[in-house]
This record gives sequence, structure tokens and C-alpha cells, in this order.
Amino acid sequence: MPFRKRPRVVIVGAGFGGLWVARTLKGADVDVILVDRNNFHTFLPLLYQVASAELEPEQIGYPVRSILRGMRNIDFMMADVKRVNLDGRVVETDGPKIPYDYLVLAMGSTTNFFNVPGAEKFAYQLKSLEQAVELRNHILCCFEQAAHVKNETKRKQLLAFTVVGGGATGLEFSGAVSELIHGPLARDFPMLDFRDASVVLLEASDRLLPGMPERLQKYALARLEKMGVDVRLNAAVSEIRGATIRLKGGDSIKSETVVWTAGVSGDPQIQAWGLPTIANGRVAVEKTLQIPGHAEAYVAGDLAYFEEDGRPLPMIAPVAVQQGTAAALNILKQIEGKEPQPFRYFDKGAMATIGRNSAVVRVGTRTFTGFFAWIVWLFVHLLYLIGFRNRLFVMLNWSWDYLLFERAVRLIFPADRESRCHVAGETVVDDKREAGS
Amino acid sequence: MPFRKRPRVVIVGAGFGGLWVARTLKGADVDVILVDRNNFHTFLPLLYQVASAELEPEQIGYPVRSILRGMRNIDFMMADVKRVNLDGRVVETDGPKIPYDYLVLAMGSTTNFFNVPGAEKFAYQLKSLEQAVELRNHILCCFEQAAHVKNETKRKQLLAFTVVGGGATGLEFSGAVSELIHGPLARDFPMLDFRDASVVLLEASDRLLPGMPERLQKYALARLEKMGVDVRLNAAVSEIRGATIRLKGGDSIKSETVVWTAGVSGDPQIQAWGLPTIANGRVAVEKTLQIPGHAEAYVAGDLAYFEEDGRPLPMIAPVAVQQGTAAALNILKQIEGKEPQPFRYFDKGAMATIGRNSAVVRVGTRTFTGFFAWIVWLFVHLLYLIGFRNRLFVMLNWSWDYLLFERAVRLIFPADRESRCHVAGETVVDDKREAGS
Repeated sequence: MPFRKRPRVVIVGAGFGGLWVARTLKGADVDVILVDRNNFHTFLPLLYQVASAELEPEQIGYPVRSILRGMRNIDFMMADVKRVNLDGRVVETDGPKIPYDYLVLAMGSTTNFFNVPGAEKFAYQLKSLEQAVELRNHILCCFEQAAHVKNETKRKQLLAFTVVGGGATGLEFSGAVSELIHGPLARDFPMLDFRDASVVLLEASDRLLPGMPERLQKYALARLEKMGVDVRLNAAVSEIRGATIRLKGGDSIKSETVVWTAGVSGDPQIQAWGLPTIANGRVAVEKTLQIPGHAEAYVAGDLAYFEEDGRPLPMIAPVAVQQGTAAALNILKQIEGKEPQPFRYFDKGAMATIGRNSAVVRVGTRTFTGFFAWIVWLFVHLLYLIGFRNRLFVMLNWSWDYLLFERAVRLIFPADRESRCHVAGETVVDDKREAGS
Repeated sequence: MPFRKRPRVVIVGAGFGGLWVARTLKGADVDVILVDRNNFHTFLPLLYQVASAELEPEQIGYPVRSILRGMRNIDFMMADVKRVNLDGRVVETDGPKIPYDYLVLAMGSTTNFFNVPGAEKFAYQLKSLEQAVELRNHILCCFEQAAHVKNETKRKQLLAFTVVGGGATGLEFSGAVSELIHGPLARDFPMLDFRDASVVLLEASDRLLPGMPERLQKYALARLEKMGVDVRLNAAVSEIRGATIRLKGGDSIKSETVVWTAGVSGDPQIQAWGLPTIANGRVAVEKTLQIPGHAEAYVAGDLAYFEEDGRPLPMIAPVAVQQGTAAALNILKQIEGKEPQPFRYFDKGAMATIGRNSAVVRVGTRTFTGFFAWIVWLFVHLLYLIGFRNRLFVMLNWSWDYLLFERAVRLIFPADRESRCHVAGETVVDDKREAGS
């Protein structure tokens, strides 16, 4: 291959993985094109707070071009990637085709419904800002409907919220929804009996927070139950049909809201691109994060399946950040004619928040719970949130809600044009004219 | 009609008119149902700032139930009003039918396209939060496309922004868009030549801000031109087709963005309800704000056509606030067996902002321009914005943008799933591999 002065690196995805590739390549002797379907980066660890009406979507999104402003060698393109032609070294989008010398795929992951019938159709997801807003609007709509529905069965169904999956997302969302309901919504809807409202968390295994130390699992379970969340372990969903959730073993739950956080897998479309060695829809990469057989192509973040000490790395932001950085450094090594280095994850720990004053944190082998852990959780999330303005506004929102037991973000917006929010099937509000006659 | 202990008042619309009816009826011996299609009040005077990426939509929306929290006799229902049966005294929604004893219609106004061919199909509007977000997303999309389009004609068309109507909304939006483009977007898109960008303001009459004192009209014109807005007076639009805007007289403009602020009219659906005496889609009310022939039904705000001293009142928030209050007081009088009183508008003045440090204000017969007027404008708008939190966040946003010449809200969200944002018709990004070979 002929000598090239300035190779082009194409990065697909502006999540943690892709952004850290870009940051690492800033000022290097390469031209970079970062491609994403959105013009903003989404801070996914706080997505559940958008869904539970705590934060505004704009507060956890940050324009990619703002992040790239100081990076002269990095260009951005808003496009949907339709196919990656590994042999021809071309990224095909819904607009232009982009030839590359080096490639980093960092498209993240999607929800894995494990082929449970009805799950994809009826359950809400928590993987994108759109989905979070859709879920928030739906929750608020359920209350708007319940306020005027006379049928008691229907009302209880509207006020039943079911979360599938006892990992960090499911746990954090259950806690946040429970606080939303029994705090601000109870004040907004004085006509409703809040003993009718329920939050159920279903986990197929025998514990919450798989992978966390047992002490933290038990603490989280006890806290959630104290907050009124009905946690059901060993409860696997067999089918969802409309507002009915069937469990293996025969039980069923009636609930107009099911949120599916039970599984993640790689981007399903990549299977059609002929990427080698795929595990669970993810790309089983080399130790260097390269795609087997394609030395110029890397995968970073959730999309990369990477085992360390015999166990796969978790699909979390710190892994994506470190892999993005490592992939970029390996590309620079290759350009210099050196060997790419194997990736090694530096595990700083893990954490999850449960509710007000309550979180679990693992740092190395040490564990923390309660108020101190909660403060650590807040601090770390503010730190990693991109943009000073977002940090300020999120901190203001959190302080506001903490002090006033309030949630300020309760708009049903954008409005659901199918009017699913509106009360249906009720013929008439009591005609007080006759009653008073 | 039989004696009734507690009459029911139904209010349609949670804008300024409807909310001030509710506030006035708080604690009175009536049951009130406030109906709106959204669960929030929209502060329309700042809508153009959402469209120009200055404010987040959540900052000018406020949940109706929060406003009503202290008002025990007032209930809210989220519903689309399909028809008002004046003779049967029933409001028919897409859900329940609501019988009433007294009614206040305060649904506001919609865009009036004056039957200009293509206007409704191709022009953006500024009458709802959804429309403002749609317009903001479109503007940002135009820049994302322009960044990668090679055809110069197409690029200029993408960077041409046309505003129809030289009233307060058109003027404020033109100024805000011009500042958005030549400030933050110029920094986001260093690859674009911003001499290609243009903002054109078309006004059919011979002056901006009709109804304002001449000194303010002239000041506004001079300031806008100094900011680079191409103001064309006596320029009436005859047709819009795709990206082509034809003017009466034969000129035409090529622009992918047309914003129509040239006219407002009443809610078109009310014509089908048999409401008497309609002028320009609005209800020509009695001096008491009652609907002619229906003593128990009132109209307040933009929907009410009301002449004073031979001139119709403007369609602005202060008129709606005062009419809402007056209608509520008249209902209370009727319940007490007294005569409803004629409405009289107390004109505190009018104002419009043009841009940074620059506004026009009329207080009685006195006029102010420049920095002082701008401060007055900011202060008055913060004061009327509902909710302390919204005030705080808007003030922070304004301060931020003022000090940093920045606009923080630049997400294209919710994403346009038709991918109109993405670059189309370009086959391939320069293949640097061959060029470098």
C-alpha cells in the first residue's frame, strides 16, 4: 500500500467510547471523522433520571460540536451508518460513503428482550434519550388518566409500574419512580388513593445487582423494600401481552407500564455486515481491541466483547472510556509502525444509587452504603457529566428536588398525538346540574 | 332553572386567559374544571427563544397541576376539546363530556396563512412548544447538512433563513436567529463561510411593529439592519413552493427555512360549533366578554374579538390576563344575581426585544430604546414567567449566553426520524486514500 501523509480515522458513535477515541486523537497527525445519528452525546448513566422526571433531557445531552471545538483535526458528521464494508474499508451511511484508513466502531448496545413474546412490543426501554422521554411522558399520562377514570381495576392498572431486571438500571429506576410517585405526584393528584399505586421490580435470578459484593446486594434489597418497592426475586417474565405480564410459574401482573432493563446486546445490524466472531450480538475482539482479521478496525465500549481473567467486562462507561483511549493509542502506534498493545481494564469500582441518601459503592474490594455512598455517587456523576453548564443545572435540579421533595420536570412533552394520555371510555363527568336540581 | 348550590365552571385552555380565570375563582363557591390538551402552561412570549436555541422547552412550560396545587375547588383534565354544545351546555372532549353551568373559552389563536398557496405546507410556525422545537431542530439540521454539502447553491439555500411578518414575534425571532448564527454556530462550523448565511425579514406593510410609536419602529428597523438582518418592507409573499418564496411583484427568495409569523386567527374548529358573530375566526364578544345570546358563556384572550375606542385589542398576554380575570369576576357576579360588568383594558404598554442590549418599550405614551429598554424587557418577562424554578433557570441561561456569547441548547432532539437532517445526494466523502497515493 502506498505511503500516506495523513491517514483518516473514522469513529462510529459519539458515546463514551467514541468520544474518548476522538479526545485521544486530538492534535495527532490524522484526520478524524466522528459519525453519529444524533448531534449530541448522551450521558447514559443518568438516563433513568430523565425517565423519572428528575432531569430535563437537555441536561444529560451535550452537543458533539461543542466537545470538538478545540480539535481542529476532527470533523463531525450527523448520519445513520447503514453498513461497514470492512474489506473495502468504507463506512456507508444514509448520506455519503466515508472511506477510512482506520476505523473504531463504538455504537454501544441495544435492549435484549431474550425473545420473550410481547416484550419488544409492549415494554418501554431505557437506552436512548427519546426512550427516556417517552417513558416519562407515559408515566405522567397514566396519572392524568387515573385522575378521571371511574373503573377501579383500570385505575389500579394505570398506577402499577413494573420494572424487569434487577441490575443497576432497574434498581435505580424503581427507586426513582417510587420517590416520584409518593412525593410530587401524590401532591399533584390529591383525588387519588396512593395505596392503589405500586412499583414492582422483577429479577430472574436470586439477587439484585449481579456482580456486586453480597453485602451491597442485601443492602439494596432492604432499602428498596423499605421504600415500598415490591421486589420479586426468581421471577422471570414469560410473556407480555398488553397490560398483562406473565411470569414463569404461572403468576401474572396487571400493569400499564413495563420497563425492560433485563438485558443488553450489541447493535443487531452489525450481524449483517459480516463481522467475525460475534457473541451475544457483540464483537469478540482481539486483546488489542482489533477485529480479528482486520488490523485497521477496532471496537470499543459496549459493542466489544472482551474477557479478562475468564470473565467478560461489564457494559459500563468506564470500560468504554478506557477502551476508546486504548484503541486510539493503538492506531497511533500502528501509524508509527509499532505493534498495538493489549488492552487491560483498570477497575476503579462500581456503584448504584437507590434513592434519597442511599446508594451502594464498591471501590476495589471495599464497600460503602448509605449517605456517604450516595454523596460519592453524586460527586462522581457530576464529575463525568460533560459540560460545566450541564453540571451546574443538574446540581441545581438535584438540590432543588432534595430540599423541596419535588420534581420540577413534569411536562408531558412532546405531546403524544395519539392522545393515549387522555381519558377514554368514560362517557360523561358527573352532571352536577341534575344532582343539584 | 332550579337553584344550584355549587355551580360548575368549565375553562377551556390553560394559557394566560384560562389560568387567570382559575386564579380568580380560587376559593370561590364554585367547582371548576380546567381543560387543556397539554398538562402544562406555555409562556408564549418566550417561544421564539426556544426556536432560536436560547431556552429549553421545559423552561417556559409549567405543569398546570403545580399551579393549581393550592386551589382545592379547581380540578384539571387533560383532553382535546372536540366541540362545545352551547345550547346543551356541554363541553365534548375526546374523552368525557363535561356539563357546565358557566363556561370560559380561552383556547388562544392559531397561525393565519391568509390562504397564501404553500404557506401552511412549507412554512414553520411559532404558536406552540412543539412547533418551536421543530423549528429549532430544523435550523440546526440545516447547518449539519451544509457542513457536508458540496453544491454551493444548495448550501446557500440551507443557510438562508426567511421570516415572514414584521410584528413583535417576527422581529424578535429574526434578531435571535441572526445572533445564533453569527455567534455560536459560526464557532461550531468553522468549515462554513458565514458570508453565505442570511436572515431575511419580509413585511407586507411599510413599517415594522405596526401599532407601535414611529420612533420605536424606526429604531427597530435600524438595529435589525445593523445586526445583518435583510429587512424588506412592502414585501408580500404570494406563494411558497418547497424552498422557493415568491413575492408579489415577481421577486423570489431561495431558502430552506420559512417561518410564518404574519398573522393569527381564532381556533378554526370553533366555526363548526355554531358560535355567533365570528370575525377573523375569533368570537365577537359582548362588552361583558359574554358570547351573544349565551349569558353563561364567556371568551377571554386571543379568541375574543373586542373593540375599544373603535380599535380591536391586540392579541397579547396582558389582554388575556385582564380578560380572564374580568370573565371570572363576571361569573361570580352572575351567581350572586348581579349584572356582569363591561370589560375595559388597562393598557400598561408594549415591548419587543431585538437582540443583545437592544429593545423597544412603550409605557403609556413614553417610549424607550436600547439598553435600558432591554433591561426592562428582561425584568418584565422574568416577572411574568410562572414558577420560581423557571425564572431561576431562564435567568441563568440568559446570563450564561450574555457573558459567553453562547447558546447552550443546541441538541437536535427529539431526532427527526425521517433523517431530513442528514446529508443527502452526496455520494462519497473525498477518498483521501487515492489522493494521498
